Amino acid sequence: MKSRAAVAFAPGKPLEIVEIDVAPPRAGEALIRITHTGVCHTDAFTLSGDDPEGIFPAVLGHEGGGIVVDVGEGVTTLKPGDHVIPLYTAECGKCKFCLSGKTNLCQAVRATQGKGLMPDGSTRFSYEGKPIYHYMGTSTFSEYTVVPEISLAKIDPDAPLEKVCLLGCGVTTGIGAVHNTAKVEAGASVAVFGLGGIGLAVIQGAAQAKAGRILAIDTNTAKFALARDMGATDCVNPNDYDKPIQEVIVEITDGGVDYSFECIGNVDVMRAALECCHKGWGESIIIGVAGAGKEIRTRPFQLVTGRVWRGTAFGGVKGRSQLPGMVKQAMRGEIRLDSFITHKLPLERINEAFDLMHQGKSIRTVIHF
Amino acid sequence: MKSRAAVAFAPGKPLEIVEIDVAPPRAGEALIRITHTGVCHTDAFTLSGDDPEGIFPAVLGHEGGGIVVDVGEGVTTLKPGDHVIPLYTAECGKCKFCLSGKTNLCQAVRATQGKGLMPDGSTRFSYEGKPIYHYMGTSTFSEYTVVPEISLAKIDPDAPLEKVCLLGCGVTTGIGAVHNTAKVEAGASVAVFGLGGIGLAVIQGAAQAKAGRILAIDTNTAKFALARDMGATDCVNPNDYDKPIQEVIVEITDGGVDYSFECIGNVDVMRAALECCHKGWGESIIIGVAGAGKEIRTRPFQLVTGRVWRGTAFGGVKGRSQLPGMVKQAMRGEIRLDSFITHKLPLERINEAFDLMHQGKSIRTVIHF
Repeated sequence: MKSRAAVAFAPGKPLEIVEIDVAPPRAGEALIRITHTGVCHTDAFTLSGDDPEGIFPAVLGHEGGGIVVDVGEGVTTLKPGDHVIPLYTAECGKCKFCLSGKTNLCQAVRATQGKGLMPDGSTRFSYEGKPIYHYMGTSTFSEYTVVPEISLAKIDPDAPLEKVCLLGCGVTTGIGAVHNTAKVEAGASVAVFGLGGIGLAVIQGAAQAKAGRILAIDTNTAKFALARDMGATDCVNPNDYDKPIQEVIVEITDGGVDYSFECIGNVDVMRAALECCHKGWGESIIIGVAGAGKEIRTRPFQLVTGRVWRGTAFGGVKGRSQLPGMVKQAMRGEIRLDSFITHKLPLERINEAFDLMHQGKSIRTVIHF
Repeated sequence: MKSRAAVAFAPGKPLEIVEIDVAPPRAGEALIRITHTGVCHTDAFTLSGDDPEGIFPAVLGHEGGGIVVDVGEGVTTLKPGDHVIPLYTAECGKCKFCLSGKTNLCQAVRATQGKGLMPDGSTRFSYEGKPIYHYMGTSTFSEYTVVPEISLAKIDPDAPLEKVCLLGCGVTTGIGAVHNTAKVEAGASVAVFGLGGIGLAVIQGAAQAKAGRILAIDTNTAKFALARDMGATDCVNPNDYDKPIQEVIVEITDGGVDYSFECIGNVDVMRAALECCHKGWGESIIIGVAGAGKEIRTRPFQLVTGRVWRGTAFGGVKGRSQLPGMVKQAMRGEIRLDSFITHKLPLERINEAFDLMHQGKSIRTVIHF
């Protein structure tokens, strides 16, 4: 079938809005009509050409919501009309990882997904007879996309897709990191580095967890009002100090924070986030994605004296098991999504969303089809 | 009083056996007659001059056992005749750290201990009228030493001090790291880098925890027999492979180990130890002490995909609370100490213990007075 889509034909170039061909879903797959999609920094990272694993031409997009149109052979958990959020972290429930009880990093479709292909090694997208690749297993920048059944979370049909699509990536990652990875407890102190969508979601999560103190750290002070609104108790601009930010945080908090979160993808900030943790027990969680080849570093003494260095992907959330519940939380107002949506644009203007992001003017732009 | 002691007068020089003066214990302190002491790599590190925090002249030694001779004012938990193990990690039971329930890193005497002084800021040792400094709060290379009450674990008087003195550092560190820091569970896979005293103790701890697979890794294959005897299931010599050892371990274990321990103090090995952990949940524990200014590094992707980087000091063991129980375990044979003791020497020959260590010929030399 024909589908309007924003295609990334080459790195570093704007997306092109064209009509692509979408093949029917094969066994274990579903055809989804995407109604809304967020535009995330990871899309911009891949589009820029800096992502060493980026594949072109491709349909980008991984933060969407939509409705099942058709299902392939053997699909039992979904039917046409179901509302879904595509997952870039599948949940097959059967692999060593899913069965471990220790991680959300299902590996069932990992290899093909990383190559821009469906699990059977082929692509469902083409343009003028030439293949177009998938992206993160989701490709939500197309009105119609094909996604494996195990990469689709079925959600409440009454949930507003124009909002809950954000649970497909950033908001879930931030909130999940607090609850699943750090396991922040009531009264704990928390430092959040970077006040983009993920950082703000971490603040929401920390507030849900009843953290005693939530420090929001960014050099863009325009973000502080929203951070406070979401629950930050202290806003800190590193440019206001002559000394390293980790020393500032250790002083402010009388020894360091219980938990810190890096939500930028900068390896120097990752070091600061670790080193601002309290000796003996502070844990730092890396959420941001660093550039190719970048490395984190610190003195091992930081760990020997009790700090813990962790990371998280999709906030440790198992999409099919946990996302439906988070959608319900959003419907009840326990997760606030409105504050993240600074702009709304039709698909035809999607390149403006990247411009707004690069200019630091948006938190999330939601695209409608 | 007079005391025979091995004094480190200057970095890089052999210890000198001299008769020093030991002042009586002040408030909150106890005078201990050391009967036995191990010689540890940390003593050698400080003696070499590479330890930036090394202070001279000093009485080194931190792995000893002895008997209380006298107590200062206000000491209530110890009396003359009690058998004790001096602790370089105190346990006051009152500080923020002790009360946290999250760490063994009591900070009560940390500042003065780091300066080679007793908690009141003075030293109890002198030689020819000039002050000699304390070391790690223990200074077990002296027949008589003075130690804060909160830095003494009272143990079963029937325990053989010539063996259980090893619980003052290396053995406790290794076994404690397994149970307190990593919390290794039955069936888990474990990789141990470095088969010195600590590495062998980690193997013992992993065997106690009923780990399913215990990989012992060292370039000195002479250590493999003892490693197997203590419970290692696989012995790996990195020199036998052309590829990085982390890749070798990942292949051998079908994805990586559940837990790894670095017991050397080499930052490159620390990286390998992290990167040989299983995606999604593997945890690496740094035990070794790296040289001054050395830094660990890795790609943050290693953590974002679920690996955890930790460290431990004294195996996370709270000395006064937990060491008496470990001494009982040793008495029952549940902790094997004999295998660690490769040499026994009188104090007068203590420099030979350092030679044996540097030549890789000893695991532990126990000094008697």
